Amino acid sequence: MTDTIAAGRAPVLYDLEPSGNCYKVRLFASLAQIPLERRPVDFLAGDHKREPVIGLNPWGELPVLVDGDVVLRDSQAILVYLARRYGGEAWWPGDACRQGEVVQWLSTAANEIQHGPCTARLIRKFGMALDEAAARRTGDRILGLLEAHLVRSDWLAANRPTIADCAVFPYVALAGEGGIDLAPYPFIRAWIARIAQLPHFLPTAGLAPAA
Amino acid sequence: MTDTIAAGRAPVLYDLEPSGNCYKVRLFASLAQIPLERRPVDFLAGDHKREPVIGLNPWGELPVLVDGDVVLRDSQAILVYLARRYGGEAWWPGDACRQGEVVQWLSTAANEIQHGPCTARLIRKFGMALDEAAARRTGDRILGLLEAHLVRSDWLAANRPTIADCAVFPYVALAGEGGIDLAPYPFIRAWIARIAQLPHFLPTAGLAPAA
Repeated sequence: MTDTIAAGRAPVLYDLEPSGNCYKVRLFASLAQIPLERRPVDFLAGDHKREPVIGLNPWGELPVLVDGDVVLRDSQAILVYLARRYGGEAWWPGDACRQGEVVQWLSTAANEIQHGPCTARLIRKFGMALDEAAARRTGDRILGLLEAHLVRSDWLAANRPTIADCAVFPYVALAGEGGIDLAPYPFIRAWIARIAQLPHFLPTAGLAPAA
Repeated sequence: MTDTIAAGRAPVLYDLEPSGNCYKVRLFASLAQIPLERRPVDFLAGDHKREPVIGLNPWGELPVLVDGDVVLRDSQAILVYLARRYGGEAWWPGDACRQGEVVQWLSTAANEIQHGPCTARLIRKFGMALDEAAARRTGDRILGLLEAHLVRSDWLAANRPTIADCAVFPYVALAGEGGIDLAPYPFIRAWIARIAQLPHFLPTAGLAPAA
């Protein structure tokens, strides 16, 4: 691997501004002060299904990260890569127990958060024809479990801010855009505010007022 | 952390025999020769929603791993923990690029595999009232992407068997139980056979004949 940052080139993020999955990467890169070259993709024009993006990610999804000869799809994988390579142990601890704690929440981000608050937002904000009742059920369940966790802990894993928080934050903080009210979840709202107060926090459009 | 294995005690797996998510952990532990104490949970009696399991995992899901003072839910997180702690670098590489490659597939296991072939199997084999058309659509898409990947590579990540293969294998190899035919996917079938030929491979009931 060539060290692109040391060589004066930033990792390239194929990016979509309103995507919470892309925002995970932009947020973490800002918090960890990792330079990124953002390359916006015209989603409405279908450019994520055309070259060069489809050649980099046959899944036709964003974000995609290119860093020298490294090409990665999936926002969770990109967080692990950037944290391991450029972010230091703080954001992605090296020990087995802490890694396990973090990965629990990366799976939650890939599964329940995606199929709950993210899907609700795709329906309400972007008009996609998906199952809103199922998204609300998944959302209610995962927000209840997240709230119960945050009653006992300020952060999702390792007793400190990690890539787990970066992976879960975007679609939870944007839940209102999916018609999901965070009022019943005071500990989630406090966690959102806590993240928003971290040094180098990067906001995005549509965040809950608490943040 | 106390080292439970060095102290003569094996990590405890709260286990459900027919669960592909539990099989991920049993399979990896066998391949990496990590001892496990299996503690079967009576799912039909609802014991996963009662103490002691619900106290260990408020999500009420299996598997759960307990290793000394470490308690983890989520099969992907358990794979990362066991590999990092007891499995050596081969199954879960330490470098950023390889970790990113592996985590791409851990997300796929948590998302598309869960909502595709796993859900199809829950409907056909266990009679759960879920959306079969959606599960088939997700299954067709992910199997097509997996097939295309395996045309170019023998393994999912890092050019060798890793926890990525262990996370994706169970529900793909059990797809037939969900009414999904693997005949159109020769490279997936060859990968299943390749995994089944690894030293210390652990079979489970219902695997495709190719395996």
